[in-house]
Amino acid sequence: MPESVAVFGAAGFTGALTTKLLYSHPSFELRWITARSDTGLSLHDLYPHHRVPLVLEELNLDVHADVDAAVVAYPHGAAAELVAELREREVRVVDLSADFRLRDPQVYAEWYRNHPAPALLEQAVYGLPERYREQIQDADLVANPGCYPTAAVLALAPLASEGLIEDVVIDAKSGASGAGRAATPKTHFVTVDENVSAYGVPRHRHTPEIEQELNALGCGVPVTFTPHLLPLDQGELVSCYVTGEGSPSGAGLYQLYADFYADEPFVELSDGPPGVRDVRETNFCRISVHHDQRTGRVIAFAALDNLWKGAASQAVQNLNLMFGRPEGEGI
Amino acid sequence: MPESVAVFGAAGFTGALTTKLLYSHPSFELRWITARSDTGLSLHDLYPHHRVPLVLEELNLDVHADVDAAVVAYPHGAAAELVAELREREVRVVDLSADFRLRDPQVYAEWYRNHPAPALLEQAVYGLPERYREQIQDADLVANPGCYPTAAVLALAPLASEGLIEDVVIDAKSGASGAGRAATPKTHFVTVDENVSAYGVPRHRHTPEIEQELNALGCGVPVTFTPHLLPLDQGELVSCYVTGEGSPSGAGLYQLYADFYADEPFVELSDGPPGVRDVRETNFCRISVHHDQRTGRVIAFAALDNLWKGAASQAVQNLNLMFGRPEGEGI
Amino acid sequence: MPESVAVFGAAGFTGALTTKLLYSHPSFELRWITARSDTGLSLHDLYPHHRVPLVLEELNLDVHADVDAAVVAYPHGAAAELVAELREREVRVVDLSADFRLRDPQVYAEWYRNHPAPALLEQAVYGLPERYREQIQDADLVANPGCYPTAAVLALAPLASEGLIEDVVIDAKSGASGAGRAATPKTHFVTVDENVSAYGVPRHRHTPEIEQELNALGCGVPVTFTPHLLPLDQGELVSCYVTGEGSPSGAGLYQLYADFYADEPFVELSDGPPGVRDVRETNFCRISVHHDQRTGRVIAFAALDNLWKGAASQAVQNLNLMFGRPEGEGI
Amino acid sequence: MPESVAVFGAAGFTGALTTKLLYSHPSFELRWITARSDTGLSLHDLYPHHRVPLVLEELNLDVHADVDAAVVAYPHGAAAELVAELREREVRVVDLSADFRLRDPQVYAEWYRNHPAPALLEQAVYGLPERYREQIQDADLVANPGCYPTAAVLALAPLASEGLIEDVVIDAKSGASGAGRAATPKTHFVTVDENVSAYGVPRHRHTPEIEQELNALGCGVPVTFTPHLLPLDQGELVSCYVTGEGSPSGAGLYQLYADFYADEPFVELSDGPPGVRDVRETNFCRISVHHDQRTGRVIAFAALDNLWKGAASQAVQNLNLMFGRPEGEGI
Repeated sequence: MPESVAVFGAAGFTGALTTKLLYSHPSFELRWITARSDTGLSLHDLYPHHRVPLVLEELNLDVHADVDAAVVAYPHGAAAELVAELREREVRVVDLSADFRLRDPQVYAEWYRNHPAPALLEQAVYGLPERYREQIQDADLVANPGCYPTAAVLALAPLASEGLIEDVVIDAKSGASGAGRAATPKTHFVTVDENVSAYGVPRHRHTPEIEQELNALGCGVPVTFTPHLLPLDQGELVSCYVTGEGSPSGAGLYQLYADFYADEPFVELSDGPPGVRDVRETNFCRISVHHDQRTGRVIAFAALDNLWKGAASQAVQNLNLMFGRPEGEGI
Repeated sequence: MPESVAVFGAAGFTGALTTKLLYSHPSFELRWITARSDTGLSLHDLYPHHRVPLVLEELNLDVHADVDAAVVAYPHGAAAELVAELREREVRVVDLSADFRLRDPQVYAEWYRNHPAPALLEQAVYGLPERYREQIQDADLVANPGCYPTAAVLALAPLASEGLIEDVVIDAKSGASGAGRAATPKTHFVTVDENVSAYGVPRHRHTPEIEQELNALGCGVPVTFTPHLLPLDQGELVSCYVTGEGSPSGAGLYQLYADFYADEPFVELSDGPPGVRDVRETNFCRISVHHDQRTGRVIAFAALDNLWKGAASQAVQNLNLMFGRPEGEGI
Repeated sequence: MPESVAVFGAAGFTGALTTKLLYSHPSFELRWITARSDTGLSLHDLYPHHRVPLVLEELNLDVHADVDAAVVAYPHGAAAELVAELREREVRVVDLSADFRLRDPQVYAEWYRNHPAPALLEQAVYGLPERYREQIQDADLVANPGCYPTAAVLALAPLASEGLIEDVVIDAKSGASGAGRAATPKTHFVTVDENVSAYGVPRHRHTPEIEQELNALGCGVPVTFTPHLLPLDQGELVSCYVTGEGSPSGAGLYQLYADFYADEPFVELSDGPPGVRDVRETNFCRISVHHDQRTGRVIAFAALDNLWKGAASQAVQNLNLMFGRPEGEGI
Repeated sequence: MPESVAVFGAAGFTGALTTKLLYSHPSFELRWITARSDTGLSLHDLYPHHRVPLVLEELNLDVHADVDAAVVAYPHGAAAELVAELREREVRVVDLSADFRLRDPQVYAEWYRNHPAPALLEQAVYGLPERYREQIQDADLVANPGCYPTAAVLALAPLASEGLIEDVVIDAKSGASGAGRAATPKTHFVTVDENVSAYGVPRHRHTPEIEQELNALGCGVPVTFTPHLLPLDQGELVSCYVTGEGSPSGAGLYQLYADFYADEPFVELSDGPPGVRDVRETNFCRISVHHDQRTGRVIAFAALDNLWKGAASQAVQNLNLMFGRPEGEGI
């Protein structure tokens, strides 16, 4: 019998895409989708291209928590409370928000606010399968990584694990779907079209998440991370500039990455710099790495689809791991 | 009597825009435009939005060199020979190619090929008015800067001149017009649309030009420079990540830039990161500068229109200086 | 002494562009700009690329009506009242809204609501210079045409005036700036990007305006008019499919248009179908006309920039006419 | 045992997508892919996002014709000869070109040139499953419809079959992938971006194909068909303006369409005008129909993905029918 699942917060971009993936997933039965607005509408009305006829319901945990697993796609801050209630009812959860990504509540407090459910932080596993596959399998609460951290950590992990990063600049570029579904002056077509600019300078909230995960790999340097908004829909590229001694160059550098990701089904290496088109609507992260002889720097690029590997399909990848399904099923 | 001018290589993007600007310029009489292809066509046929009815002629120096000044918009390598012939006939020249930008023929040879007219290098002035205004006024040969170096040098000059740069990463983003008019797989709409990727990794030819100009400001560090192609038409943004001791922060940092550019008519500062929309179809370079307390880094952004301040309108700015016209006339 | 002018409603796209044009206009002194929101901000804060440092003020007619002329850029319905007050104070007005475009208050009522100032309708002149140049010169109240009617009427006028239209379908395409500055789900980048769809089917409010003006040319047929939203910023194309007996074909058809527009400075004919790029950021309307031998139909295309000839620059063109300035001054 | 298939001409946009779909199809074994250029390259090199590691081979029928079925994605004119050779070897063929779509060789000659294989025309079935499902099942040669005719015929068939079309204008809009992979001035990013214009005026080659299929439904009127190029990648919208007596309005009109397509798995109706985003990367054609009371006209819109339902996925749909597979398998 398939496991029953629910998606909470299915009206946003990432919740809706998770819904679409789970709706046609062979091993899960998607039982409920809820939203904080647009309730009563069919998801089909909001996102015709997803072709999911389910109706967005108003949250009623007595009804909707009667599932084996849930994906929570609430905004940061709002997610923690719902996750706590779901965990009390023993629902296994993948949370798309930032609320359980930072292990240290002090760091969370510094970048967001006081943590609303610090007791749960201990049981949360950071949901990057390429790093925590085994822990995810046993987890009851998975904190799905941010889109930028997913790309940045995958781009840098081989270097970090070898102690080759003394300093790093991460210049990130993202399409407008990363800004979410809310209609604001920043997401108006006329603002984004034929434009590019940085935002969140110099303190974007994905910075501590990247640092935490590099730190876990043995790289304790503070990170300079600057995202830019591009005139495209889905897609994200991180360009990482690494200073450090002892990095291999040429074929040796490629081999370091090839070995590190040899068994990873969703990380692929390319010779030339990857484009976000190469990974559009997939769970792949595509990486290239280059050595600049003149400066000694290593430059690593990682491209992914911010709504897929950066959010929804990675959530399904995590669910697959949690319930013993083939890791790539349904994505 | 207005000075007579000609544009050689007017069929490309930057030559055509230079033509448009000079055609309606109050102080120059645009007498000839030539091209290496499409001769016999009116510029209006190729670029209706420029509204210039002049006909592209095949080069005949006996006819076309009878002018006071010329703008040469030939590809790198092909320009030097024509420039040499024009100089022999005592035509004052603004050259849009890279052929006279690098003062050291050894460096040119390393990044391009053996220099075709090394004797002329000495008389060439680097055409960045914000740096060499007085020399440009007296110059007979002005090497119009590359688009990326224009943005990067303007973004970094205040720091470089104060000795505040120990290391710098320049991550640049450009629209597709920067790739030129040639129809190739790289400029196909379907390649560029909904995409972003780096190119010229790790050795883009604008690197030595940036280094030369930072060096002239007292900053001798090698530069990491990586451009990216974006799905937009015109516009260029450079994001500069500077490591160094002793930089002011906050208001002091802003003031450093404000003082440095206090008298510059075409450099403007913004509080937040600039967007390329802010400078579209203008000669402005728009800059912001930020201090990251966590890492001590200074981050500077500069936005410009690669076809305007990055090429054609800066060429006209230089012509204005060379002939004693108001610097912003006609642009 | 230059005439003093004010722009009311300068925070929207068309009001802001009108402000930009008037700010640098050699014959008008732009004294005030007002807005219904964002008051206290500089226009520069909202639209850096316009480079207008004026501050948006809250409307105070005792102060702001002390001008020779005003441009009103209010929404339909809201404009009429302000226009009436300005007219009472003998300010000459160009109104960008639809409130005074329809001469028949019954028609207005059918498509909008009861007319808020029917008494003023008689003195309003429809501000299409190519049709009403002389009346505009003497007018105190000019109703600036809608963007679609401007394009459609210019595309069809030569045929209509010769009685060659028995039936017509107008399929129109517009960029997203035509939807205005409001951030809504419809103007979200992710909605517009990589998309195209019709809207206002089958009753778009520009229909009666087109019919009124074709009627004035002797063509009394009801019009089928359907606009579509395209993933671009500025630009509008109307494709007009005309059924009728007796139309000339080939060169004769072109000549009909060439004669009709022989003296028009801002209408240009092209042999092939025009693109909106050809007229971007100009006051030009670019037209081509074709005869389909197989069906006998005439197909006419007209391209313009919806914010320029479709709104702001046409408003300045009208102001120029009203005050005896050269028609193309400042645009 | 799965049927073996080959794709000839796999380097173009539609051939490559067909390859991708067949590569992962559960019931076909994709044995060969060939190309007329780029041979020796892996499809992965040209189209990384398709993730097909097969190598493009130079055509050798002695090897490559040893399959049960083939998809031919050659240009018009070049396809017929290859199709003839494949048919001689008893390979069942789906041809993506126009060579076998027009049943009357006279009409082909009028719009293209003398037909290179007229004898085969009789056995060719027009591959629009919604019209010829049964004949396709038995066909050895299926002429896959053009993208515009697919959309136009599906939009108009319910009206045509009821004799409700006396006259029709079809205004079509397509993304740039419809122009093919060749890099030309017309497909340069800078040409397409922020632009829209008509092309093929007034005689686009899809016109006779649309007329043939409307005629087969009993509607013998000549068609006015005008396509436009839009700044988007994949997607196509046709807007059809129908004049005729006796059409139902309101609910009756919707019901006519609902009944006509009641059993069609890949035609879906929408209340409001469809957008091409709704069908991106799917085999769906999404249709809406509207009655304009003022003019009596019926307006029908159809949206599809020109590379999918307009080409590659419809080819697979046809292959599925030819080999008794579920119609939607693998698409």
